[in-house]
Amino acid sequence: MTDQWITEQLHPYYRKSLRVETMLVDEHTGFQHLQLAQTEFFGKTLILDGIIQVTERDNMGYHEMITHVPMLAHDNPKTVLIVGAGDGGALQQVLHYPSVERAVVCELDRRVVEVCAEHFPDFGNPFANPRAELVIEDAFTYMQRAAGQFDVIISDTTDPIGPAEKLFSAEFYNLMAHALAPNGAIATQCEQMYFDASLIKTMLATAQSLFAHPAYYHSLVPTYPGGGIGFMYMSNVPWTNGLNKPYPVPMNYLNPEMHRAAFALPEFFRRALA
Amino acid sequence: MTDQWITEQLHPYYRKSLRVETMLVDEHTGFQHLQLAQTEFFGKTLILDGIIQVTERDNMGYHEMITHVPMLAHDNPKTVLIVGAGDGGALQQVLHYPSVERAVVCELDRRVVEVCAEHFPDFGNPFANPRAELVIEDAFTYMQRAAGQFDVIISDTTDPIGPAEKLFSAEFYNLMAHALAPNGAIATQCEQMYFDASLIKTMLATAQSLFAHPAYYHSLVPTYPGGGIGFMYMSNVPWTNGLNKPYPVPMNYLNPEMHRAAFALPEFFRRALA
Repeated sequence: MTDQWITEQLHPYYRKSLRVETMLVDEHTGFQHLQLAQTEFFGKTLILDGIIQVTERDNMGYHEMITHVPMLAHDNPKTVLIVGAGDGGALQQVLHYPSVERAVVCELDRRVVEVCAEHFPDFGNPFANPRAELVIEDAFTYMQRAAGQFDVIISDTTDPIGPAEKLFSAEFYNLMAHALAPNGAIATQCEQMYFDASLIKTMLATAQSLFAHPAYYHSLVPTYPGGGIGFMYMSNVPWTNGLNKPYPVPMNYLNPEMHRAAFALPEFFRRALA
Repeated sequence: MTDQWITEQLHPYYRKSLRVETMLVDEHTGFQHLQLAQTEFFGKTLILDGIIQVTERDNMGYHEMITHVPMLAHDNPKTVLIVGAGDGGALQQVLHYPSVERAVVCELDRRVVEVCAEHFPDFGNPFANPRAELVIEDAFTYMQRAAGQFDVIISDTTDPIGPAEKLFSAEFYNLMAHALAPNGAIATQCEQMYFDASLIKTMLATAQSLFAHPAYYHSLVPTYPGGGIGFMYMSNVPWTNGLNKPYPVPMNYLNPEMHRAAFALPEFFRRALA
């Protein structure tokens, strides 16, 4: 048997490859090219349009950080909107909070939900939870009729290419601010500090125009470009409000030291954002 | 012209590739295969036996963290030994300290020194500094006759493959302890937390048998496997002794928040080391 690899190229100058044991799903859904591979070391891996989205081994650095930072910053989150994230990983984390009464996942592509429900059993089949609601709809349309409804919004999206490009726009950030309840908190996937500094600077300026306490933070995800990913925290409540609160379940990535460390930025990047 | 890439595979399941504009040096030195490429985005890149060692764009996360963490922890470092590191990047950082009277680089391969002196002008030609001393010798032999001589030792080496494997051994850690002056501090390159947890656990146990205050820390280096690298700090002085001291020059990566953040470890990895 010959070597099989999946090779990702999100930036023109950088590629990453994981060794594939078996390609389990490989289809065009109408929205995107969806692949699910059994990889060596990283386990099952979801790939959308050639870009690695989720692996069994390292998704905790992503899902715990995009979810718990805004959830903990809010003192009593009851309603949560998750944009994208049909894989269910962020939803699983949100549902750990007993305070949550309603968690809406707004995902465009139903096949992502179906394939991931079958192949990521560790996510605990979160869409079967009675507090979960799946909406197959464009998040732009959905949020326009959701003024002030959500205590926490998590934008767990693909990268700003093709249809997802508009999720990295001032218009989208404004819509999230519009759908947020008073004292709500938002976290968005917001790219990699070494590769995407100028995009991040633009999004931070937008965040600063909308909220009193925006902040960029980041986590370690070896299968993402450059080995990590960042997030934009946006709220009128500072992220530090979530520090040292009890966790709803034991964590695999997050602890109070990592929570604080996620907001520490290297000097070159601090200067780039200034 | 066709696409040219350098592809690195340090682990059997993971590859990374950088786009090459021009291959500037490609030779076998007698010790190793030495390549120096002009890459897109990352600039000039040193590759030894197929593994990326240094790039112009992201070496600061490596060099500042392997150097300043032990240097700042020591209250008055006068004598410094750097094992490997013929590229001169760590030496440059060490020489920023006015207290340093003698900085010895013990490197096996003189061609690394020559090629890097020519191609990394930003490292400031540190071997020309009168306080610098280049020793072309095996560090094992050198340290055996250097009992108690060094205030700081920096082991800035390649990965534990082939001749460098012995640099990740209890014998080598013992030799460093032997060559260290009282209250001295050591930092060694110590691999990636996701990929190399069991090696790191072994090295930490060795460090604990030799020093009162060993600690693993890490930094972001996108061109390294998994996008980062770790270090073993070893001393009878805790690393926190270096926090909030003035820096000898402005930094590009390090600041007090990143200094502390480097020692924060994700929960899964804390458990793996326990």
